[in-house]
Amino acid sequence: MGYPDHLRTQVDIYLADVQFAHDGDLAGLTEAMRYSLLAPGKRIRPVLALATALAVGHDPREVMPLAAALELIHTYSLIHDDLPAMDDDDLRRGRATCHVEFGENVAILAGDALYAEALRHIVVHQGGDPADLLAAIGRLAAATGVDGMVGGQYLDVKELAPAGPDGLRRLHALKTGRLIAASVQCVLELFPAGEPETIMFGRFASELGVLFQIVDDILDVTGTDAALGKPSGSDARHGKRTYVSEHGLERARELATASHEAAQAALHGAAPAGAPELEQITDFIYTRTS
Amino acid sequence: MGYPDHLRTQVDIYLADVQFAHDGDLAGLTEAMRYSLLAPGKRIRPVLALATALAVGHDPREVMPLAAALELIHTYSLIHDDLPAMDDDDLRRGRATCHVEFGENVAILAGDALYAEALRHIVVHQGGDPADLLAAIGRLAAATGVDGMVGGQYLDVKELAPAGPDGLRRLHALKTGRLIAASVQCVLELFPAGEPETIMFGRFASELGVLFQIVDDILDVTGTDAALGKPSGSDARHGKRTYVSEHGLERARELATASHEAAQAALHGAAPAGAPELEQITDFIYTRTS
Repeated sequence: MGYPDHLRTQVDIYLADVQFAHDGDLAGLTEAMRYSLLAPGKRIRPVLALATALAVGHDPREVMPLAAALELIHTYSLIHDDLPAMDDDDLRRGRATCHVEFGENVAILAGDALYAEALRHIVVHQGGDPADLLAAIGRLAAATGVDGMVGGQYLDVKELAPAGPDGLRRLHALKTGRLIAASVQCVLELFPAGEPETIMFGRFASELGVLFQIVDDILDVTGTDAALGKPSGSDARHGKRTYVSEHGLERARELATASHEAAQAALHGAAPAGAPELEQITDFIYTRTS
Repeated sequence: MGYPDHLRTQVDIYLADVQFAHDGDLAGLTEAMRYSLLAPGKRIRPVLALATALAVGHDPREVMPLAAALELIHTYSLIHDDLPAMDDDDLRRGRATCHVEFGENVAILAGDALYAEALRHIVVHQGGDPADLLAAIGRLAAATGVDGMVGGQYLDVKELAPAGPDGLRRLHALKTGRLIAASVQCVLELFPAGEPETIMFGRFASELGVLFQIVDDILDVTGTDAALGKPSGSDARHGKRTYVSEHGLERARELATASHEAAQAALHGAAPAGAPELEQITDFIYTRTS
């Protein structure tokens, strides 16, 4: 099985057209935002959102503004994570990081602006019942706040995750898992499913975040710089705890396999009639090499 | 006339109780957020929101969650503005700035988290018609995005405002004015007024943002460190263009008087029956010494 590239293409076309502001004197800011936003990527979060819409019987185009907003938010988090005061990374998605290219001040502001513009984009462009839309925004806010992405990054930079696999799992559940899970769940806010399906979708989405991170840690050890678009081995150089540092490579691979199976099982429970695009993404996250 | 301190007290009591997360390992992050959020301040934006509710005949408590969110967003912008890569300020509201106290990485994340938590707070706690609430969130997003607060800060740090008073006015309209205006306007989204009143409220709110900035620039020259809670003369040291550097102190004072009169006139048009708290805030912004 491949990746749902038809969905990714739709995302890429849409993202290239997203407008921030027309003001000439702000062009340098929007250029920095676009530079990071439009760097080649798998668009896992927006593609997940579109695939979730398909899985519950809707046209994916109905949630495209929400899907695009997820990528804006993800890009903001990458820009801020790469800053000198944070992970201090120079390379991302095969390009110089935002602060290397545009300066640290512009990078901070580009990240800040991407979050605000993600929100504005949803309010202006995403159709749907206002109460459902509010609930979807609530999901995004929670997934990106203290008990979400930013909290996870805090545990990461301060090296505060408790020792042992549970601590590591919690760190990644916050840092990566919450936004990946929200990519599925915010679509379900717009297209409510039955309660058991919603629970299983939630389990699927959470597990997918864990799977993503285990494979990420493995690739940091086994991948090549060229394939990753950033230097491999960067976790070890930063002294970061990873699934590999914690468990060794072989055990990390076993954990990835177990997580993949758990995600598949949850997906079958959530969409008994099948959800081929979500299955493709699940398999892709497990087997990807970059 | 004084300041509507009864409204400020309500805001302070409410802010002290805002919860971010209960997780022990995230306490360092929420401590940094609270440190900046709860530093003494005039709470101009939330008090404006409460006063606007009063002006259109509502109990201010009805918009308290929205008002609190405005202060969270304002605090996030202060934390990021103070960062070494931005204005590099060590003192704010009479205290060491967030990055001096907690480190640059935590300060960046505290700012990021405050925005997400502001949004989450509105979705979870602010009552009202969902469509109106969405419109209010849209106001906040627009006021804080590229064509708003972050764009204004970009023009400021990159020294990109066009020469002359119009350039300076545009910079401040984005950087400060948009969020101050939104403090009035997002309340009107929840309690719609007639069209002429809404237009006049919009004019009032924009002018208030301008007035705030002119007085801020004057105080940077005439104020004492103790009164300001930060070193006076910091604009000049940073080589910043201000109303004073552009026009001289005397002319800046005349501009403040004109702006104060314009704001008053717009307010009388917006609330012909009177809006004493909004008048108090307008006068306070004009006559404040810190």
